[in-house]
Amino acid sequence: MSLVLIRKTAPTEAWLAALRDACPGLDVRVWPDTGPVEDVEFVLTWAADPGVIAGFPNLRAIFSLGAGVDHILKDSTVPAALPVARMVDSSLTMGMVQYVTMAALQYRRGWEAMRASQREGQWRRPELGGARVGILGLGELGGACGKALAALGFEVAGWSRSAKDIAGIRAYTGQDQLAGFLARSDVLVCLLPLTAELENFLNRATFDQLPRGAYLVHAGRGEHLVEADLLDALDRGQLSGAVLDVFRHEPLPGGHPFWAREDIIITPHNASQTHPATAAAHVAANVARARAGQALIGQVDRAQGY
Amino acid sequence: MSLVLIRKTAPTEAWLAALRDACPGLDVRVWPDTGPVEDVEFVLTWAADPGVIAGFPNLRAIFSLGAGVDHILKDSTVPAALPVARMVDSSLTMGMVQYVTMAALQYRRGWEAMRASQREGQWRRPELGGARVGILGLGELGGACGKALAALGFEVAGWSRSAKDIAGIRAYTGQDQLAGFLARSDVLVCLLPLTAELENFLNRATFDQLPRGAYLVHAGRGEHLVEADLLDALDRGQLSGAVLDVFRHEPLPGGHPFWAREDIIITPHNASQTHPATAAAHVAANVARARAGQALIGQVDRAQGY
Ligand SMILES: NC(=O)c1ccc[n+]([C@@H]2O[C@H](COP(=O)([O-])OP(=O)(O)OC[C@H]3O[C@@H](n4cnc5c(N)ncnc54)[C@H](OP(=O)(O)O)[C@@H]3O)[C@@H](O)[C@H]2O)c1
Ligand SMILES: NC(=O)c1ccc[n+]([C@@H]2O[C@H](COP(=O)([O-])OP(=O)(O)OC[C@H]3O[C@@H](n4cnc5c(N)ncnc54)[C@H](OP(=O)(O)O)[C@@H]3O)[C@@H](O)[C@H]2O)c1
Repeated sequence: MSLVLIRKTAPTEAWLAALRDACPGLDVRVWPDTGPVEDVEFVLTWAADPGVIAGFPNLRAIFSLGAGVDHILKDSTVPAALPVARMVDSSLTMGMVQYVTMAALQYRRGWEAMRASQREGQWRRPELGGARVGILGLGELGGACGKALAALGFEVAGWSRSAKDIAGIRAYTGQDQLAGFLARSDVLVCLLPLTAELENFLNRATFDQLPRGAYLVHAGRGEHLVEADLLDALDRGQLSGAVLDVFRHEPLPGGHPFWAREDIIITPHNASQTHPATAAAHVAANVARARAGQALIGQVDRAQGY
Repeated sequence: MSLVLIRKTAPTEAWLAALRDACPGLDVRVWPDTGPVEDVEFVLTWAADPGVIAGFPNLRAIFSLGAGVDHILKDSTVPAALPVARMVDSSLTMGMVQYVTMAALQYRRGWEAMRASQREGQWRRPELGGARVGILGLGELGGACGKALAALGFEVAGWSRSAKDIAGIRAYTGQDQLAGFLARSDVLVCLLPLTAELENFLNRATFDQLPRGAYLVHAGRGEHLVEADLLDALDRGQLSGAVLDVFRHEPLPGGHPFWAREDIIITPHNASQTHPATAAAHVAANVARARAGQALIGQVDRAQGY
């Protein structure tokens, strides 16, 4: 039986080595060189073309190469009964914790203002940014980011669908508590999954419930953000700036208005990546669970869309 | 009996309120309006002019407003027997942890390269900087910074005079172990005190023992650094960059070669500041200790110079 790796970009060698190491006995192949499609038990994928996954009749489970599964669920040909797992990878989580920490600290400590002062040859202490961080999504990534920021002296709150109890994080739950959460967030960090409900969630109505001059850190998905509403909120001073890692079209096209903005910091969707060694351990655990008929680690609730 | 606050810059109101709150019964005054010099039991000072402290004949102890005490010990008129305490302030420590974390993360994650790519309108993932941080000085500040960096996935080592055992930090001790410590440090963070022995410590010989292309984060004192040796190490590629918070002359003079360097990031000695409320609690505890004839918290070993 085999696992097929479907990935648009090379190199896959590190992946093959890590997977073969972690899953001895499993035949690991790289799409499109899959061998007999009947033998394929698992796919490990990022953004497979629609229809590709449905071509394997005997799949037991689909594993995402990333934390998001929107790229799998939007393929309507994927059989509805197949279990899907998002990636849970300690290195991926650490990468996101570093990214969000860097983004929050550079805002709090006035990094960009200090860089500008140096260009002018001016010794000038910047104003401090606000300390109240609000994290949209308290899952694997949001929870870890919240704990790290609390340890660094930020006042951290988080928002999720179900109630949470995480030391150091003030938890807000559901639509009812959204307004209260937004009203106290100087820095809004988006680590939501992309579901139908959450598309366009970062819009004017959301921004206008934040304190005036709030700051956005967006590392969810491009489709969460209404780009025109962000530009408008910045122009109105409702937001003072943003760090964006994800975009509707990636790479962000040349000439896009975000590029030239002083108040938008663009990072090239590198907040966090899956690392072969740690990720392969997660895949191996889920291979065993799928064969034993157990729930997967990071198994997606397909009705909820994440 | 009174405590005299000696501080060159306003505002002192927050200080007075915090000290009066924390030390009820103590008469808190602001230099030069000290009242009878015989009544002065304590001074709390930053960079008092030489001779000022010696003008109080009945002092029990001298408290520094900052973590460093070099500004007190260099005044040869200060009686040698008087206990001196550096500031130990949870807010000061947190400020330094934030600063060092920000400096290390922006290096590790290629922040400046990403900012440059945006200015060019280029979607380009930067190279990662090294993960091995070496902290010079594992005291109050260095120890806290090391723990925070270890929690963020850095490989942390530290160097100190006496042996240490801090979870997550590989400890190197004394001159004998300095070379081994430097050889494994991609990022060198200076949080040493300024003593006679450590003046000019950051020099060519030190830089040349680091891995090629190493990065310097300096938040100790300006006098630790041989400025010409830094410029030379950068020009030779032995160092790839530096973040500097402290300088021999502050504010850093206009026209100083550091200002225009792309590979030097200047911050205006704002890595960390003492905060009245938390600092006043430390002062109150030391007032009680001094009156009881106990050792002070953060008491300086004047023979060692820190
Ligand atoms: N930029 C990058 O490099 C990068 C890398 C990795 C991931 N990501 C993004 O980060 C996202 C989060 O990853 P994760 O592993 O943390 O996912 P996760 O563990 O599934 O967490 C998702 C969180 O969002 C909350 N949520 C979902 N729908 C909601 C709703 N309608 N209202 C309120 N809260 C809702 C969930 O609430 P419950 O806890 O109550 O279920 C959960 O706390 C991914 O989906 C992906 O989009 C980006
Ligand atoms: N830039 C800013 O805003 C800012 C703010 C606050 C402080 N600072 C600087 O940070 C410094 C450190 O503050 P701190 O509170 O952490 O001081 P600390 O607790 O006294 O720690 C000093 C550390 O340096 C080590 N050390 C001293 N002499 C040494 C030597 N010859 N060889 C090896 N190690 C030596 C000590 O070793 P042992 O542990 O073995 O004694 C100790 O670990 C201050 O002195 C000040 O210069 C800068």
